[in-house]
Amino acid sequence: MRTSRLEAFSDGVLAIIITIMVLELKIPESHDLSGLLHDTGDGLLTYLLSFVWIGIYWVNHHHMFHLVRHVAGGVLWANLALLFTLSLLPFTTAWMDESAFARTPVVVYGLNLTAAALAYLVLQKLIIRHQGAESPLRQAVGSDLKGKISPFFYLAGVLTALLVEHAAIGVAFFAACALLWLIPDRRIDRMVHELEPVD
Amino acid sequence: MRTSRLEAFSDGVLAIIITIMVLELKIPESHDLSGLLHDTGDGLLTYLLSFVWIGIYWVNHHHMFHLVRHVAGGVLWANLALLFTLSLLPFTTAWMDESAFARTPVVVYGLNLTAAALAYLVLQKLIIRHQGAESPLRQAVGSDLKGKISPFFYLAGVLTALLVEHAAIGVAFFAACALLWLIPDRRIDRMVHELEPVD
Amino acid sequence: MRTSRLEAFSDGVLAIIITIMVLELKIPESHDLSGLLHDTGDGLLTYLLSFVWIGIYWVNHHHMFHLVRHVAGGVLWANLALLFTLSLLPFTTAWMDESAFARTPVVVYGLNLTAAALAYLVLQKLIIRHQGAESPLRQAVGSDLKGKISPFFYLAGVLTALLVEHAAIGVAFFAACALLWLIPDRRIDRMVHELEPVD
Amino acid sequence: MRTSRLEAFSDGVLAIIITIMVLELKIPESHDLSGLLHDTGDGLLTYLLSFVWIGIYWVNHHHMFHLVRHVAGGVLWANLALLFTLSLLPFTTAWMDESAFARTPVVVYGLNLTAAALAYLVLQKLIIRHQGAESPLRQAVGSDLKGKISPFFYLAGVLTALLVEHAAIGVAFFAACALLWLIPDRRIDRMVHELEPVD
Repeated sequence: MRTSRLEAFSDGVLAIIITIMVLELKIPESHDLSGLLHDTGDGLLTYLLSFVWIGIYWVNHHHMFHLVRHVAGGVLWANLALLFTLSLLPFTTAWMDESAFARTPVVVYGLNLTAAALAYLVLQKLIIRHQGAESPLRQAVGSDLKGKISPFFYLAGVLTALLVEHAAIGVAFFAACALLWLIPDRRIDRMVHELEPVD
Repeated sequence: MRTSRLEAFSDGVLAIIITIMVLELKIPESHDLSGLLHDTGDGLLTYLLSFVWIGIYWVNHHHMFHLVRHVAGGVLWANLALLFTLSLLPFTTAWMDESAFARTPVVVYGLNLTAAALAYLVLQKLIIRHQGAESPLRQAVGSDLKGKISPFFYLAGVLTALLVEHAAIGVAFFAACALLWLIPDRRIDRMVHELEPVD
Repeated sequence: MRTSRLEAFSDGVLAIIITIMVLELKIPESHDLSGLLHDTGDGLLTYLLSFVWIGIYWVNHHHMFHLVRHVAGGVLWANLALLFTLSLLPFTTAWMDESAFARTPVVVYGLNLTAAALAYLVLQKLIIRHQGAESPLRQAVGSDLKGKISPFFYLAGVLTALLVEHAAIGVAFFAACALLWLIPDRRIDRMVHELEPVD
Repeated sequence: MRTSRLEAFSDGVLAIIITIMVLELKIPESHDLSGLLHDTGDGLLTYLLSFVWIGIYWVNHHHMFHLVRHVAGGVLWANLALLFTLSLLPFTTAWMDESAFARTPVVVYGLNLTAAALAYLVLQKLIIRHQGAESPLRQAVGSDLKGKISPFFYLAGVLTALLVEHAAIGVAFFAACALLWLIPDRRIDRMVHELEPVD
C-alpha cells in the first residue's frame, strides 16, 4: 500500500488536534487587557506550547514518511496509536490550564508527551523493520540526537512537577524540549562538533 | 469518476469523527488522580474504544478502495451512509458515558455499531456489483472471516446489555470484537487452520 | 491554476460542516428510549436532513469539478461564497431544532438552503463563462432538471412555514427536495419521458 | 521536500479555522427575527468578516505555493507560525463579539490581523531567499500593492479603536481592507494607472 492516504489521514487528524485547542480558550469575562491576561494568559501560553508540540510531530512525521514508500497493516495501527496519544493533548492541556498548573495535571501532561514519544519510536522501529536491511529511514535517524535527549527532558519535567512546590516549573522543561526541536539540525550538529574532540 | 476525491472526503470526515470525541471528555473537577479516574476514567476508556472502531473502519475503507478504480453515483451515497452511521458514534459514546453504562445507551451504542457494519456491507456489495464478474474486491473479501463473525459479537453485546443486570458487560463484547480486528489476518488464518482438519 | 487544491479545501470544509452538527445533538437527560426520542428525536431527524443536504452539495461539487481543469480568481471566491452559505447550515439547523420548528427558524433554514442554491448557480455560471464557447460543463448541465425544480420546493417550504399554523410542515418540502436529489438521474429522465409526448 | 503535504496540512487547518467559528454563533433565545438580529446579528457579521479574512489568506497561500516547488525546514515552521496566528482569529472574533465591540477586544482583533500579515510576510521572504536569485515568487510579488497598503488599514483600525469613542468604527477599517483584497487585481492596476501620470 502506498503512503499517500496514511499521510492525508494523519494530516487531517493533526490539523484538527492543532486547531480545536483554540476552542478551549476561555473568552475573558472583562473587556480589558488585565481580563485577557488573567483569564486567558495561561491558556494562550499552553495553547502555544501544545501547538508547537503538534507542529513538531507533524514536521517529523512529514520527514519520516518522506523516506517511506509502502506501508503494511502494523504501520497503519502504530500510526493510529501515535495519533491517539496526540489527540489526548487538547484534553491534558485543558486540564493543566484549568487547574492553574496543579501537580497531577502537569505530571499527566508530561506523561502524555512521553506516551506520544514512545508511540513515535514504535512507529519508527516498525517502519525500519519493514524496510529491511537497506532501510533509508534507519540511515536517516542514525544520529537522532534530539530523539535521544528528549526523554530526559520529559523525565526532568515530570520529576520536577512531582517534587518542587510550584509544579508549573516542570512545564519549563517541556517548553525547553520543544525549543530544542525548533533549532535547525545543522546548528545542533555544529554545537556537538564544538564540544566533542574531532577524530 | 476516480476514487481520489471520495477517499479524501472520507478521510476528512473520519479524521474529524475520531478527533472530536476528545472534546466530549469532561475535565476533572478536582486536580488529582482520583478526580481523573472518577470523572474521566470511563470517558477515556470509551474514547479509546470508539477511536479503535473508527480506526478499524478507516483501515478497512483504506484496504477496500485500494481495489477500486472508479466509482458511480450509488457508491458515493452508500459511502455517505457509512459516514453518517459512524458520525453518530461520538453522540452514542457520550450518552453511554454520561449514563454510566445504563441499559438503553449501551444497547443504542451496539445498534450504532451494527448500523455501521450494515452500511459497510452495502457499500461493499455495491462496489462488487459495479465491478462486475472480474471484481478484484469480491476475490479479496472471499473469506472475510472477521466480517462474518462480527455480527454475532454485536448481537451478544446487545442481548447481554438487555438481559444482564450490569449493562456495562455488553460493552465487553464490543471491545472483544474490536480486538478481533486488531489481530493481523495471518494469525487468524493460522488459528482457523489449526482448528479445522486439513483437507 | 489547477483545481486539486480548491477541491481539497472544499472537501475539508464540507467534511467539517457535515460532521460538527453531531456536536449540537443534545445528550438525552434520562437514560431510556423515551428520553432519546423526546430530547434528541427532532435533532436526529434534522441532523440527517442537513447531512443529506451537505452530501448532495458534495456529490454535485464533485461532479461539477470533474469537468473543470483550471480555475481563475473569481471561481475561488464564488466557491468560498458557497462554502460560507453551507457553513451556516449547522447554525440554522440548531436554531430550528431548539425552537421545536417555530415559524421564523424554519423560514430562515429555507432561506439558507436558497442562498446555498444561488451561490452554487453563480459558481456554475462563472465556470461556464470562464470555459468559453466549448464549455463541457454547459453541455453537462444543459438539462439540469433538478436544479430548475428545486427553487419551487424551497419557495413552497418557506411559504408553507409562513402561512400554515404548524411551520414544521414547511420542512417536509425541504426533505422532499432532498429526496429528489437522491433519486438517480436516469429514473427522473424516464419519468419525464413518460409524461411528455415523444417528438 | 515537495510542497504537496504542506499544502494539504495548511488546507486542513484553514478549513477547520474557517468553519469552527460557526460553533461560536449563539443560538438566539427567542424564535423571531428580532431575536436573530439582537442575539446573533453582530456574530453573523464578524463571522462573515473573519471568514473572508481566512478566505483571503487561503487564496493568497494558494497563489504563493503555486510558485513553490520545494520547501526546507524553515519554511515549514514559518508556515506553522502563520497558521498559529490565523488559528487565534476564532478566539479574538468571539471576544470582540461578546464584548459588543469594546475597545480592547477590537484592538486585539486588529493586532491579530497584523500578526498574521507579518507571519505571511516572513513566510514569503523565507521562500524567496530559499529560491535564490531567479525566484519566481519575487517576480510575482514585485508590485504587491495590496500587501503594501494593508498595514496602513490595520494601523488606522487599531488607532481608531483606541481613540474614538465607538471602537466598532475601527472594525470598518478591517472590513475595508478585506474588501480591497476581494477586488480583482486588474481593477486596482487600472485605478493606479489612472491616478499616476503615464511615463
